[in-house]
Amino acid sequence: MTTSRATNIVWHHSAVDRAARAHQRGHRSAILWFTGLSGAGKSTLANAVNSALFEQGLSCYVLDGDNVRHGLCSDLGFSDADREENIRRIGEVAKLFLDAGVVVLSAFVSPFKADRRRARALVGAGDFVEIHCAANLAVCEGRDTKGLYAKARAGAIKEFTGISSPYEEPEAPELRIDTGDQTLEACVRDVMDYLAAAGIIPAAP
Amino acid sequence: MTTSRATNIVWHHSAVDRAARAHQRGHRSAILWFTGLSGAGKSTLANAVNSALFEQGLSCYVLDGDNVRHGLCSDLGFSDADREENIRRIGEVAKLFLDAGVVVLSAFVSPFKADRRRARALVGAGDFVEIHCAANLAVCEGRDTKGLYAKARAGAIKEFTGISSPYEEPEAPELRIDTGDQTLEACVRDVMDYLAAAGIIPAAP
Repeated sequence: MTTSRATNIVWHHSAVDRAARAHQRGHRSAILWFTGLSGAGKSTLANAVNSALFEQGLSCYVLDGDNVRHGLCSDLGFSDADREENIRRIGEVAKLFLDAGVVVLSAFVSPFKADRRRARALVGAGDFVEIHCAANLAVCEGRDTKGLYAKARAGAIKEFTGISSPYEEPEAPELRIDTGDQTLEACVRDVMDYLAAAGIIPAAP
Repeated sequence: MTTSRATNIVWHHSAVDRAARAHQRGHRSAILWFTGLSGAGKSTLANAVNSALFEQGLSCYVLDGDNVRHGLCSDLGFSDADREENIRRIGEVAKLFLDAGVVVLSAFVSPFKADRRRARALVGAGDFVEIHCAANLAVCEGRDTKGLYAKARAGAIKEFTGISSPYEEPEAPELRIDTGDQTLEACVRDVMDYLAAAGIIPAAP
């Protein structure tokens, strides 16, 4: 049985299900999938939304490239296969948080449509909120908060999204937010308004 | 950069940290790591404890072999390397839930000391509560709820813990519970009493 896959297993139904959690907490769970170029403000926006949710007393948590890359995906690099596996695992972990009743905010470049589509397909309609942080390349490269664009231009980082590897823009994300021009506060408001309108969280007090 | 590991990343400090979550929720988070033979009652006990925590209004979630094997670890089989990677990922995911303020209950055979030690080492002292579900082999094989022992005895499952692969008993678990003789209610009470005494959850009302 050295290479076989798991077959002798069944899904275990917990007595405490998602509906019970939502009822107790007073809000639904959802996956907020932030996607966009490096420097577009995904982590910044996700953390700001997370703070706003927390201040309303809601269950929420941010998964981002930094904390996940150091832990769950520390065995993965940046090859195509490793990037795909990285996003696959994040989708699966996000699904567990969803099941746990948590509004989970994932902030990864996730440049490929196919990877995002797979993550979306793991969960039900309405559970996956794709949020395109749409600051354009000029803006992101101009910021270059981590100095990565300079390194990529110098050839020190290969296959860097936007420079030497493509970013496939979402065609029909639930939300497209101009993280280039808008203030952070305005971006947060856009997300919170969407979540309230979608019935995921209560309307702001 | 096709095979390199992540190096150009930094840990992102969320504005909402574990202490803030504990303060808001009124309880600490912890990893409750249930270990024991197949049929020892790990998932049953973990789910019953989860229900008890939920009834007290606490944030909690069960990770078990069934739901994780179908998702995050669906690419893994039962080879030594795959079992080790399975437990590594579970430890990392449990750490994320811990950070999210959730009492996370993991229910896996996790037969090897080294794997359990690695999971424990990911988090702080007091964050990892190892719970040995100590029903012995005769009891577990007598139950054989999933018919796996019969298959293992017939050679249809190779490297089955307790039959053809070792179970390394914890030497100093935080809790050792006789899931062979005790009632489920008594087992749940043992765990809840420990969590209250350790200051992880409030004393029962």
